[in-house]
Amino acid sequence: MPYKGIIEKYRKYLPVSDETPIISLHEGNTPLIQAKNISKKLNFNGEVYLKFEGMNPTGSFKDRGMTMAISKAIESGSKAVICASTGNTSASAAAYAAKAKIKCVVLIPEGKISFGKLSQAVIHGAEVLEIDGNFDEALDLAKDLSSRYPITLVNSINPFRIEGQKTAAYEVCESLEESPDYQFMPVGNAGNIAAYWKGYKDYNKAEPEKYTLPKMMGFQAAGSAPIVEGHPIANPETVATAIRIGNPASWKIAEEARDESCGVIDKITDEEILEAYRIVAATEGIFCEPASAASVAGFIKYTRQNYFKDIGPVKVVCVLTGHGLKDPNTAVTNAAKSKKVRVNIEDIVSVIGL
Amino acid sequence: MPYKGIIEKYRKYLPVSDETPIISLHEGNTPLIQAKNISKKLNFNGEVYLKFEGMNPTGSFKDRGMTMAISKAIESGSKAVICASTGNTSASAAAYAAKAKIKCVVLIPEGKISFGKLSQAVIHGAEVLEIDGNFDEALDLAKDLSSRYPITLVNSINPFRIEGQKTAAYEVCESLEESPDYQFMPVGNAGNIAAYWKGYKDYNKAEPEKYTLPKMMGFQAAGSAPIVEGHPIANPETVATAIRIGNPASWKIAEEARDESCGVIDKITDEEILEAYRIVAATEGIFCEPASAASVAGFIKYTRQNYFKDIGPVKVVCVLTGHGLKDPNTAVTNAAKSKKVRVNIEDIVSVIGL
Repeated sequence: MPYKGIIEKYRKYLPVSDETPIISLHEGNTPLIQAKNISKKLNFNGEVYLKFEGMNPTGSFKDRGMTMAISKAIESGSKAVICASTGNTSASAAAYAAKAKIKCVVLIPEGKISFGKLSQAVIHGAEVLEIDGNFDEALDLAKDLSSRYPITLVNSINPFRIEGQKTAAYEVCESLEESPDYQFMPVGNAGNIAAYWKGYKDYNKAEPEKYTLPKMMGFQAAGSAPIVEGHPIANPETVATAIRIGNPASWKIAEEARDESCGVIDKITDEEILEAYRIVAATEGIFCEPASAASVAGFIKYTRQNYFKDIGPVKVVCVLTGHGLKDPNTAVTNAAKSKKVRVNIEDIVSVIGL
Repeated sequence: MPYKGIIEKYRKYLPVSDETPIISLHEGNTPLIQAKNISKKLNFNGEVYLKFEGMNPTGSFKDRGMTMAISKAIESGSKAVICASTGNTSASAAAYAAKAKIKCVVLIPEGKISFGKLSQAVIHGAEVLEIDGNFDEALDLAKDLSSRYPITLVNSINPFRIEGQKTAAYEVCESLEESPDYQFMPVGNAGNIAAYWKGYKDYNKAEPEKYTLPKMMGFQAAGSAPIVEGHPIANPETVATAIRIGNPASWKIAEEARDESCGVIDKITDEEILEAYRIVAATEGIFCEPASAASVAGFIKYTRQNYFKDIGPVKVVCVLTGHGLKDPNTAVTNAAKSKKVRVNIEDIVSVIGL
């Protein structure tokens, strides 16, 4: 059978029935790519893998949760969905709503969305409203609207989102034919670390010998690290816009995932994030969005701090949550510039240094 | 076995040996998505499928050919690669060269590359040179350099590119468990239509009963239609930048594919391309780049012209060659604008029309 998305594949682990109409863009089934160049660069004694979620249909892991959220919205008779979003959620909601032929309303904090992501919401036909407030105000409005009008909220507080997202952990287990020892993640709204943990626990419960439990290693951007600081951040700032969240919706369950797994939730600076972002693109050939690089930045930081020193060879998975094409500006700003040359072979040879 | 890219999967059909070092980003294995909404919209008596090649690692079908070209370059001892490109080829070459740890030089016609694609080439560490000439001049320079210096040309005249690209036709056959009746394609440099035709012929030869031969239906943009017009176009123009080619490298083999399959190579206008682009995004939830939509534009045109009228139910595949995130500007220009609203629920309700 050809692959047809996460609901068809993992239906026994998901809250769907034969009556659920499945709205899918064939999300999931993303590659787990061994990062031998990064491993070598860091003299890491073990194996590092990148779970490249940018290869989902709208370019981010959000599609896993959205196929669930939209399918369940249709099952319940909904004719419209709404979300507050800084980008990836809106792109995914707009795409799946288009496929389902229902209306999608997106509330975005004015000026706080990357160009790539905005282009997705509008081309998929969503009604995009830029509000003169921040993300938390946009989310409050979306919640209020969904409680008073016949419109389904598809933000990550929608419980079906995490159910869909946990399937990424299933795929990691299947690709490795065992669990990793460490799972590195970016942490923003914190739903994804909770989702992976749930997924690993599911497989562990089904086959405890084969699938042990990894340590969950979450990383927030230093200017936007409410869980690390222990209090909400009023004006979060970071280059990693997809994790610029001051008051995460899944705060508590993210802490539970950390504590149950004996993992950590720590912070890394924007400089560390951008360094990892460049390393992933220039040494592994994978272009992820800046927030995605928080996982690799965390791995690099812990490796340099000798965290793995006395542990022996381990398997590490870093999730790359979204595609770099979501945010081309950050790439162009953080890479060497293109050079202008004349149509002349000698000029070009001297520039290239052949 | 987890999926590891087209060379591992289709090695018996590809010119590789056990000595070939495989440089892969797990390209291929892209979804074939049934487009029921488009079918319904057009009252089409049959099944339409979209082969979404935007779900390759760098966001276009070029990755299939590039894993071959770079792997073979490494096998032959090459330490550097070069290409002339308006975008997708350079993005792919830069990514695979990074993974292979060799140098990549990209020659682009000044100002003729979409922002997303430029961001890919630079972040993957390619040396990007903007020349003050057109694509054909850039290609001549690249050929000249590769013939005089130790640098491998990875443009589509590199014979391994088409070998890799033909695997998309294998996947279509496997997904449908038979061949389609019609294969709609954008035609730019014309290598991809030749590659699909080669792929269909391979499967037909292996299992002639199961895999019949489809008609190859290629579409050029009206302002850039040398094969249709019968002569090279000096200054090709179209919104579909990825197929803005005045003198296709694979002109002759594209015509052979057309003639052997009893298909057509025709042209569509930019307006038809943009209409198809919007329809695919707004009704199927798939965001492709403008050039990709040439396949669907051709299908819409032929359906409206009653081309399929007396044929009975058929299976049609339209290739979407690249992801819409490659060119966010065209999306924002061709969709409804976002609206600015105050943080006020009544204002929002009236704008949305709940």
